[in-house]
Amino acid sequence: MKCEASVLPERRMAELGIRLPEAQSPLAAHLPLVVANGLVFVSGHGPMNSAREPVCVGPIGSAHTVDEGAEAARLAAMSALASLRLAIGSLDYVRKVVKLNGYVLSAPGFDRQPWVIDGASSLLVDVFGPDRGPHARTSVGVAASALHLSVTVELIFAVDEAR
Amino acid sequence: MKCEASVLPERRMAELGIRLPEAQSPLAAHLPLVVANGLVFVSGHGPMNSAREPVCVGPIGSAHTVDEGAEAARLAAMSALASLRLAIGSLDYVRKVVKLNGYVLSAPGFDRQPWVIDGASSLLVDVFGPDRGPHARTSVGVAASALHLSVTVELIFAVDEAR
Amino acid sequence: MKCEASVLPERRMAELGIRLPEAQSPLAAHLPLVVANGLVFVSGHGPMNSAREPVCVGPIGSAHTVDEGAEAARLAAMSALASLRLAIGSLDYVRKVVKLNGYVLSAPGFDRQPWVIDGASSLLVDVFGPDRGPHARTSVGVAASALHLSVTVELIFAVDEAR
Repeated sequence: MKCEASVLPERRMAELGIRLPEAQSPLAAHLPLVVANGLVFVSGHGPMNSAREPVCVGPIGSAHTVDEGAEAARLAAMSALASLRLAIGSLDYVRKVVKLNGYVLSAPGFDRQPWVIDGASSLLVDVFGPDRGPHARTSVGVAASALHLSVTVELIFAVDEAR
Repeated sequence: MKCEASVLPERRMAELGIRLPEAQSPLAAHLPLVVANGLVFVSGHGPMNSAREPVCVGPIGSAHTVDEGAEAARLAAMSALASLRLAIGSLDYVRKVVKLNGYVLSAPGFDRQPWVIDGASSLLVDVFGPDRGPHARTSVGVAASALHLSVTVELIFAVDEAR
Repeated sequence: MKCEASVLPERRMAELGIRLPEAQSPLAAHLPLVVANGLVFVSGHGPMNSAREPVCVGPIGSAHTVDEGAEAARLAAMSALASLRLAIGSLDYVRKVVKLNGYVLSAPGFDRQPWVIDGASSLLVDVFGPDRGPHARTSVGVAASALHLSVTVELIFAVDEAR
């Protein structure tokens, strides 16, 4: 099923059957996000379940396939959206997905980071639609990560000032 | 030859004989850049030729020297500028180069990332001149990268709202 | 001793006995920071002393403990604040700490990056207080870094436009 382009994000999610996890408090001494000058800077989020346990750990390219990595990226993005919705009240206030940085825990020589991070990008386009969803992006390969999380995503959104 | 400080970027490029490559579509499911609140967030760009093939792959410090890395960083920045010009129409609309993040595929123990990324910084100062060109920057050493690209650059620009 | 929440940053620092190092010029061809559209983008800063020598080099998890890494992160944040104060005149103009990216040079398998970067986060909350200090954050594990610096921090602040 495909939503119409003009459908707002919360309804799109309902129609697509996407259910966000519970928003989680950060692992350490920081906030899930900060709103400044109409932009929302969202902290790095990993693929965590509602019990705050990592869902996918270990390097992509050895412990996990690209497809498993893409699913982890999708879950990490859902975790970030849960934080965003809790903070601003509704994803309908998002005017644009601006930027996604994806950090992929990579086995030596692994070079398919963009296809892993596509898991997060696709979710964002599903949720925010063809106008608001597409975004700028950088995929980075890292050799070590917090709790050995396979993927971490970091996001910038533009939101309605008058929300 | 040195341009005057007040010369606009497009003329500076012509006078310096800098020719941008063709703008390329991203490797995966995202946009080359997004404009939000007067800032342009440009996706990670690597040193690619017009046939969309990587020009410089493998780690700096083993497969390539610092100078080769700096040339790759320069080419990656040119690729980013090509995307920017295609999207906003002219580099003359750039009010300021704000931020450059450079990711350097690094051999074990390689610690000269800033001198690699200087290749991108110098190009930006050449093109945008001494007032608009200088920028904040972070150089990051990575152990794995998309398509084994030696350097990836990611940029933020401030642009004229009334362009 | 605990400052009141409403105390301004410069007085908080004095009361807490925090003395910033001298601001340092960047290692290479870029600026310490750029102000654009009410946001300050601060370049990556490492733990350097006033003689511009690295204070903490080598991987966390092998050459250094988490606590040593946290102290390095704190020093790197102080170095970034020194650059910020020199550029904008007073830390009292900071309206909000927006975003911290911390890059931790990591031994193979090291997974405690967030607890290292907490050294920087704690300093920022000490200096800017409970309203302005808390921030969004991403902690990244890297396998190589400039001059083998153990930690690099990169910051975004929101500042008073009318300063």
